[in-house]
Amino acid sequence: MKAFAFLGVGKVGVIEKAIPVAGLNDAVIRTTASLICTSDVHTVAGTLPLPEGRVLGHESVGVVHAIGEGVTRFRVGDRVAVNAATPCGHCNPCQRGFAAQCGGMLGAYKFTAQKDGNLAEYFHVNDADYNLAAIPAAMTDEQALYATDMLSTGFVGAEYADIPIGGSVVIFAQGPVGLSATIGAKLRGAGLIIAVESKPDRAALARTYGADVVINPRTEDVVARVMELTGDGADAAIEALGSQETFSNCIKVIKPGGVVSNIGYHGDGYSTLEIPLAEFGLGMGDKTIRTALCQGGRERMDRLFRLIQTKRFDPTLMTTHRFSFDQVDQAFEMMRNKQDNIIKPLITF
Amino acid sequence: MKAFAFLGVGKVGVIEKAIPVAGLNDAVIRTTASLICTSDVHTVAGTLPLPEGRVLGHESVGVVHAIGEGVTRFRVGDRVAVNAATPCGHCNPCQRGFAAQCGGMLGAYKFTAQKDGNLAEYFHVNDADYNLAAIPAAMTDEQALYATDMLSTGFVGAEYADIPIGGSVVIFAQGPVGLSATIGAKLRGAGLIIAVESKPDRAALARTYGADVVINPRTEDVVARVMELTGDGADAAIEALGSQETFSNCIKVIKPGGVVSNIGYHGDGYSTLEIPLAEFGLGMGDKTIRTALCQGGRERMDRLFRLIQTKRFDPTLMTTHRFSFDQVDQAFEMMRNKQDNIIKPLITF
Amino acid sequence: MKAFAFLGVGKVGVIEKAIPVAGLNDAVIRTTASLICTSDVHTVAGTLPLPEGRVLGHESVGVVHAIGEGVTRFRVGDRVAVNAATPCGHCNPCQRGFAAQCGGMLGAYKFTAQKDGNLAEYFHVNDADYNLAAIPAAMTDEQALYATDMLSTGFVGAEYADIPIGGSVVIFAQGPVGLSATIGAKLRGAGLIIAVESKPDRAALARTYGADVVINPRTEDVVARVMELTGDGADAAIEALGSQETFSNCIKVIKPGGVVSNIGYHGDGYSTLEIPLAEFGLGMGDKTIRTALCQGGRERMDRLFRLIQTKRFDPTLMTTHRFSFDQVDQAFEMMRNKQDNIIKPLITF
Amino acid sequence: MKAFAFLGVGKVGVIEKAIPVAGLNDAVIRTTASLICTSDVHTVAGTLPLPEGRVLGHESVGVVHAIGEGVTRFRVGDRVAVNAATPCGHCNPCQRGFAAQCGGMLGAYKFTAQKDGNLAEYFHVNDADYNLAAIPAAMTDEQALYATDMLSTGFVGAEYADIPIGGSVVIFAQGPVGLSATIGAKLRGAGLIIAVESKPDRAALARTYGADVVINPRTEDVVARVMELTGDGADAAIEALGSQETFSNCIKVIKPGGVVSNIGYHGDGYSTLEIPLAEFGLGMGDKTIRTALCQGGRERMDRLFRLIQTKRFDPTLMTTHRFSFDQVDQAFEMMRNKQDNIIKPLITF
Repeated sequence: MKAFAFLGVGKVGVIEKAIPVAGLNDAVIRTTASLICTSDVHTVAGTLPLPEGRVLGHESVGVVHAIGEGVTRFRVGDRVAVNAATPCGHCNPCQRGFAAQCGGMLGAYKFTAQKDGNLAEYFHVNDADYNLAAIPAAMTDEQALYATDMLSTGFVGAEYADIPIGGSVVIFAQGPVGLSATIGAKLRGAGLIIAVESKPDRAALARTYGADVVINPRTEDVVARVMELTGDGADAAIEALGSQETFSNCIKVIKPGGVVSNIGYHGDGYSTLEIPLAEFGLGMGDKTIRTALCQGGRERMDRLFRLIQTKRFDPTLMTTHRFSFDQVDQAFEMMRNKQDNIIKPLITF
Repeated sequence: MKAFAFLGVGKVGVIEKAIPVAGLNDAVIRTTASLICTSDVHTVAGTLPLPEGRVLGHESVGVVHAIGEGVTRFRVGDRVAVNAATPCGHCNPCQRGFAAQCGGMLGAYKFTAQKDGNLAEYFHVNDADYNLAAIPAAMTDEQALYATDMLSTGFVGAEYADIPIGGSVVIFAQGPVGLSATIGAKLRGAGLIIAVESKPDRAALARTYGADVVINPRTEDVVARVMELTGDGADAAIEALGSQETFSNCIKVIKPGGVVSNIGYHGDGYSTLEIPLAEFGLGMGDKTIRTALCQGGRERMDRLFRLIQTKRFDPTLMTTHRFSFDQVDQAFEMMRNKQDNIIKPLITF
Repeated sequence: MKAFAFLGVGKVGVIEKAIPVAGLNDAVIRTTASLICTSDVHTVAGTLPLPEGRVLGHESVGVVHAIGEGVTRFRVGDRVAVNAATPCGHCNPCQRGFAAQCGGMLGAYKFTAQKDGNLAEYFHVNDADYNLAAIPAAMTDEQALYATDMLSTGFVGAEYADIPIGGSVVIFAQGPVGLSATIGAKLRGAGLIIAVESKPDRAALARTYGADVVINPRTEDVVARVMELTGDGADAAIEALGSQETFSNCIKVIKPGGVVSNIGYHGDGYSTLEIPLAEFGLGMGDKTIRTALCQGGRERMDRLFRLIQTKRFDPTLMTTHRFSFDQVDQAFEMMRNKQDNIIKPLITF
Repeated sequence: MKAFAFLGVGKVGVIEKAIPVAGLNDAVIRTTASLICTSDVHTVAGTLPLPEGRVLGHESVGVVHAIGEGVTRFRVGDRVAVNAATPCGHCNPCQRGFAAQCGGMLGAYKFTAQKDGNLAEYFHVNDADYNLAAIPAAMTDEQALYATDMLSTGFVGAEYADIPIGGSVVIFAQGPVGLSATIGAKLRGAGLIIAVESKPDRAALARTYGADVVINPRTEDVVARVMELTGDGADAAIEALGSQETFSNCIKVIKPGGVVSNIGYHGDGYSTLEIPLAEFGLGMGDKTIRTALCQGGRERMDRLFRLIQTKRFDPTLMTTHRFSFDQVDQAFEMMRNKQDNIIKPLITF
């Protein structure tokens, strides 16, 4: 089969690999469509120590090609989506309710990090009965793809933010995860959604998805503006960028008792994340910092699908570019260089 | 002043009373608009032991007429709304976070139950700094009125239902509280909202407010239909009617681990409420029953106002009839007899 | 192998059965010790529709005899305990965090209800990597046995009761589950633990385990006495008996905002459970009813073991009688007739 | 009256001041006993900008000397304790359930910070009906004093740590707040309590209060030792010192999904608090950081009293030294220099 792989730091390409085999409790999926993630770009830049030839990608849907012994809920030919996080369901973190940390820190992130990813004609899925989610007949592959990572990650950002009904929330950055957090904040009943974004096209999409105000951090003082809009600070802030500055601003914009919900990836060259102490009440201000990785599992996927089916929002507005799999190099290059206001490129097989 | 009062079981009328006086920490409001509540109808029918001449009503807005010593946040002339529940903020239940139970069971429900209500030209508000909420300049009295009871009660029904994002919820009855619970369920991110209502106009409004499906209990088997729609039961059910049958159905339609959130008033002639044991897992099915009264306080009112200001929904669609205060008898009569598909009658002063 | 089995309503006996086989992901345990549960008595009385020859028992420990393909955490010869509830870890309720309801209502209760139980020389365990728990070397079989059901059930009663630190709780009945709930209430930091029990030996053990007061329901008015002790009602009540009267009293003794945590089995001949409405605030008193089944899984078992290892309490005080497996009939008979103040009989193999 | 006051950075002394007056809703207490807090030492060192003559102290009990208009629950002569935090009960943070942040960040900390403290013969208490707590007749002043700050602060550390029953917790530093957190962790049902402390007397008292293991940070590698004891990290860590190093270690010792509960004061000369990113899962490890100030209010005080009355622990073991008020200078000097293994000095009037 053909697969889009890491070929050394900064290098990628389509290579030929053997179709994976479905072991006990597992499945193999024939891919029909994928999205490329900014994480793939980070990975290629060298943030994970990977062998050459490791397949990239973790946002794919397809059709069950083979199932291993022990799989009872799915059959060959079923149309399925698979979350970027694929917990086992059995280990201690899974039993404790932190399935994203399956087997250890960030352990449910198996694609690319622990085995081949799914930007390939076929891919392997562990614990298929836990991780496969049937795509409803009326749902397109493109719609289903957004549940595999963007919506699940953005939504957990909003869920962990614990926004009171009618409360205020500030969402830093409106890339696809931040946009999904905006959708999520609207779904959780925020009464004032403040997005922080400088790119006009992303700002416009944020408004479509529910942002009441968009602050441009290039031209406005974000913290001052939030204080002006809220009086006493926001109930919550969602960090969807992954930078020291936005993280600090999250602490600064929330009121005492507020929550910072971090879903940004802080892996780009700094080893500590600084909390500004004055605005943190010197460690006694009832401010809470929560952190999350994409949440997997069929049951959650089914709920995300339901929201799309009942038309609460249209995730495909994030698809700015479309490619066939033989153009995957070009799609990746655009993501790497953030060309042409790309948000998400859809890859079809 | 003129006031609409209880004059014995089944009897009401406008009477003359002295304008109340603002004691320590309290305020007196000159009423500008009110809504009549079904609870007023219950009260007149004899559910509360009341002295003759007790003023009815608990959904009013107005202008501060007088403030008592100790009130610091408001001044005479301020335009304010007051929630139906007016907690003190100091007693044990208030300190424990159950302000609706201020001073004892259902104790925050002071209007009519413990002192004169606010279907009158003037009314008294205890603990004004806790209970007055400034109405934003751009908001109409009619909009603000819905925050005093309907939205606050319906929303707590949705909040206590603890609906997971994309989850399913069944809301029994679509009177104004049930309709508000439907709005609330949409605000909390339910992926499938099933309303149960037989009246076509209420069913239509439920759809406008977010119901994906409306089941007619006169012609359909509610429990069977929910099972068909959800597969394994709903994540939550909200009881917004107050009847044994709907309460039982709430237990029946939820899946194990689900929540019944009761906001219906069960004061109409039965002394026990029965839980069907088979569907309750014989008391071990991880089903939870929660109960709530309208939630008061300025901070919550401000959040409800914010949702109206950011146009998340339009509560005034529930206003089916409009009257001046000198027609209050007629308005009450229509509520009592549920004439002309009345949902909420607006009374202006 | 020899097994203690249901032989028709009211009939039991030791029969010969084939040693079970370990299928995929499963294990077979050679039993070394068991406890008999009151649930076994209920079952024999006919509360579950069972085939004759179904093995009884769900509280056993032993040594791994065989493991099926796919099991990676355990090896033949390991000393293990198995919780009475054995979830799969993969189904929707398991993914939602309600593993006791695995696959459907009460579905984690597989022993006896869905397959042979473990009052037998060998027994089968599904999903071994989820459900086996290694017994620490220094821990006796007898200590470990209490984690399989009594402590896990009693503790979830205390956990779901959500007792504030220093709060008050009333625990109805001090059988082994109620005694475990008393231990659990003390572990969660209750400041006033009121046990309700008429038998002197159980009352004495309740005091040893942490009850500050024991009310005798035969000679005292339980509700009045709790009100006298607490002033305004208890923060929580735990129903550990399974009767209409104690359930009603639970509602009555808690204050508004309080929690009733039901762990009693209400399967003895009544089809509805009545809530007294006046004390339930007519459905608006912020009173919550929660229900639970024994909680399984290795991770929880490990935590229960840790509490025993750090000597927080001694569960073996509940062992009032000791038998070898060839006396199991006699032990069961004593449980059935509640002879000689029996609390728990230990069976050794 | 005589009062122990701040007289400029580094300077203290007993001065003469007018007895305070009870305004509306307030009370004045005649002090009978006090404890000195390390916070007083910090304050004198210059961490708060204070006027000279501001009275120090926030841990006092006494007898009601005068009540203002509006106070209904207490009378002159009542024996009362007052928490170090005295919320108003009415402002937005109080209504939101974050009363410690009354009126704004750390705002419930009124003594010394916003007005005279209570190391004086008399002191003023705002919102007396919220903040006075009657001392039970059988309780000594010394016992009651520990509820005013040490226990309330240490316990909120344990409560916010959200320790699962039987879970593991590491408590950094065993000063009086850390010791109280140890008591709190035991009360919440931790199965393994690991204290970190180098001073032998404090280590010994930690063991008395429930620590299963005490790690000496001078001679042991704390993080390595916790990993050895727990296998995969602790469920929670409590920071009760206020230093960058212990805060970092909190992040390092917890497992993914774990909680850092900070109650240490980070006001000593650093403006940011660093989170080590690798152990924080790069911001995606489901690790939560919570922060709290002492929790006030009568209802909580009553629960703390109840725990002392039912003999769950003896807080007076922390009293290492005793003084009369005319020796307060000497007591403060000992606290400032941490002489003679002082933990808490009791001051009687």
